[in-house]
Amino acid sequence: MNDHRFLRALRREPVDCTPVWIMRQAGRYLPEYRATRAKAGSFVNLCKTPQLACEVTLQPLARFPLDAAILFSDILTIPDAMGLGLSVEEGEGPRLAHPVRTREDIDKLGVPDPETDLRYVMDAVRLIRRELNDQVPLIGFAGSPWTLACYMIEGAGSSSFARPKALAWDDPQTMHKLLDVIARSVAAYLAAQAAAGAQALMVFDTWGGLLAPEMFREFSLRYLSQIAQMLQSDNVARDVPLILFSKGANGHLEALADTGCAALGLDWTIALGDARARVGNRVALQGNLDPAVLHASPDAIRAEVKKALASFGPHPGHVFNLGHGITPEVNPDNLGVLIEAVHEQSFCRVG
Amino acid sequence: MNDHRFLRALRREPVDCTPVWIMRQAGRYLPEYRATRAKAGSFVNLCKTPQLACEVTLQPLARFPLDAAILFSDILTIPDAMGLGLSVEEGEGPRLAHPVRTREDIDKLGVPDPETDLRYVMDAVRLIRRELNDQVPLIGFAGSPWTLACYMIEGAGSSSFARPKALAWDDPQTMHKLLDVIARSVAAYLAAQAAAGAQALMVFDTWGGLLAPEMFREFSLRYLSQIAQMLQSDNVARDVPLILFSKGANGHLEALADTGCAALGLDWTIALGDARARVGNRVALQGNLDPAVLHASPDAIRAEVKKALASFGPHPGHVFNLGHGITPEVNPDNLGVLIEAVHEQSFCRVG
Repeated sequence: MNDHRFLRALRREPVDCTPVWIMRQAGRYLPEYRATRAKAGSFVNLCKTPQLACEVTLQPLARFPLDAAILFSDILTIPDAMGLGLSVEEGEGPRLAHPVRTREDIDKLGVPDPETDLRYVMDAVRLIRRELNDQVPLIGFAGSPWTLACYMIEGAGSSSFARPKALAWDDPQTMHKLLDVIARSVAAYLAAQAAAGAQALMVFDTWGGLLAPEMFREFSLRYLSQIAQMLQSDNVARDVPLILFSKGANGHLEALADTGCAALGLDWTIALGDARARVGNRVALQGNLDPAVLHASPDAIRAEVKKALASFGPHPGHVFNLGHGITPEVNPDNLGVLIEAVHEQSFCRVG
Repeated sequence: MNDHRFLRALRREPVDCTPVWIMRQAGRYLPEYRATRAKAGSFVNLCKTPQLACEVTLQPLARFPLDAAILFSDILTIPDAMGLGLSVEEGEGPRLAHPVRTREDIDKLGVPDPETDLRYVMDAVRLIRRELNDQVPLIGFAGSPWTLACYMIEGAGSSSFARPKALAWDDPQTMHKLLDVIARSVAAYLAAQAAAGAQALMVFDTWGGLLAPEMFREFSLRYLSQIAQMLQSDNVARDVPLILFSKGANGHLEALADTGCAALGLDWTIALGDARARVGNRVALQGNLDPAVLHASPDAIRAEVKKALASFGPHPGHVFNLGHGITPEVNPDNLGVLIEAVHEQSFCRVG
């Protein structure tokens, strides 16, 4: 399993062909997902029932020759375990019933114990590993401290996240206290996922790109580095590659590559070759086609795959993916075209 | 008037203090705007009634020592004049009743005549100039071809604009035909605004940053260049500075600076000093505080203004602004703090 092309690519070792997986590959574009989701009753219940989380995790692998599975879960499991009360209504974004707005709110937060407070996630990881039976590696994940803080303060999604930003400007000490407890929680959570069997770990910094450069360094990057360092000092997690994905933060690729992570996720607003030129051989790169390409024709999809592979060049260290999650309206057949094109067009190119 | 600090800064000439205006300065954060908006009955009617458009254009100038007025209008006046049927419902985004989806739809589109089909805009420009009485310069504006094409194809806002992107991939020739007729329309519209009295012109490429780099160059940048060149060959507009703002497209600043525009608008995800280092003395820069800063305390606002001015440095060629439009929930007093801080902290710095 350690020789699987996905794990080899993350270590920047030669592969037979470029590995590919897709963010949100277990998701609403699949009718079988929608059926399991309906059976679960709610999105949160789907996340919290290991048997069902395992079922949807495996669904895309039954259809497509994907090179990795990713745990079906949500980045807000940690705030939920901290007592903030997660719910996700159909057709709306997530909500936290008890947002944290004051120093007193934040002082009360503790680091959840993964094997008790987030046991359902660890059980799902163990069950998925058993069911996968070493077919492909399993990726575990968490949200970044900044991204989780955005939701924990705002209590829901937002186009601007003005509340967390205002806290960062007006009371940076309190914001750092919050980010520190989240970072320690994320590190413990990811280490526990590794111990339960996750073979790669990914941190989604979905809202890092909403920050001005100086704020990004102080309130997002700093805690991504802290997590990478904490995982390096964990006996199991130190050997599990860490992928960092700061969406919209292409101005910071060099700094992200210096955190000690194994790979960077990239959105589609930078050419793979330009990103590679900037980070050199420090990290592998994961990405990065515009998810909208799956609304184009099969010929256009193949052409875009070809251009992305050419942009990266015949080097080791590329994991193919979209630059953001696959969207619900996509025809699954188009994803099949993309995956086949990645494997065919990259076959025996890097050896 | 030609010596006003706003126009001098756009020409990168020394100024007494850094000029400042704010995107969406005539907008919902002002109670007097909401009153006029209610009187107008609909947003579209507000745009189409020169007297009311003039009234809201001038409202922020009565409160704050702003250094420019910007025509109150909407980027979708051109698609509306092409017959697509604009409406904007309260609390929702804009809608076009007749989106263009096929080659046949696109073949039917013509370039609107500004003085007949968009007469209400030209009348508003003339009226505002008269009422301004040379107090400050007036900015005219339009949407970019790519951004207008997004709305014209999708028929509404979208988080991904998958339809226009799919057309660009599947039938680039048809997409170019659409972008060309829009670019010619935008150039004619901006030239007419200049003839009617606009003293600076701005193009909002709101959705350029949603494009992968190669697509940005082919489907957005190319038409921004076309507009800049067409305006250069217009007897009046050639002397009116053109500001290009491609939100989220910081990877393309050098190319945008080479279009022949006078200035670039910047969002807040790049440091002003870094942007200036990249474009050198080719263009002035406009921006770029995170609009969320207006939710912070007056002290934090002043500190962020100070940092932005320091980042740009004591050079000519800076127009202060936010990095995106001011949001409806802002306390107007906080905008007053920002404007005062810009003038005070930059006074006699560049001379």
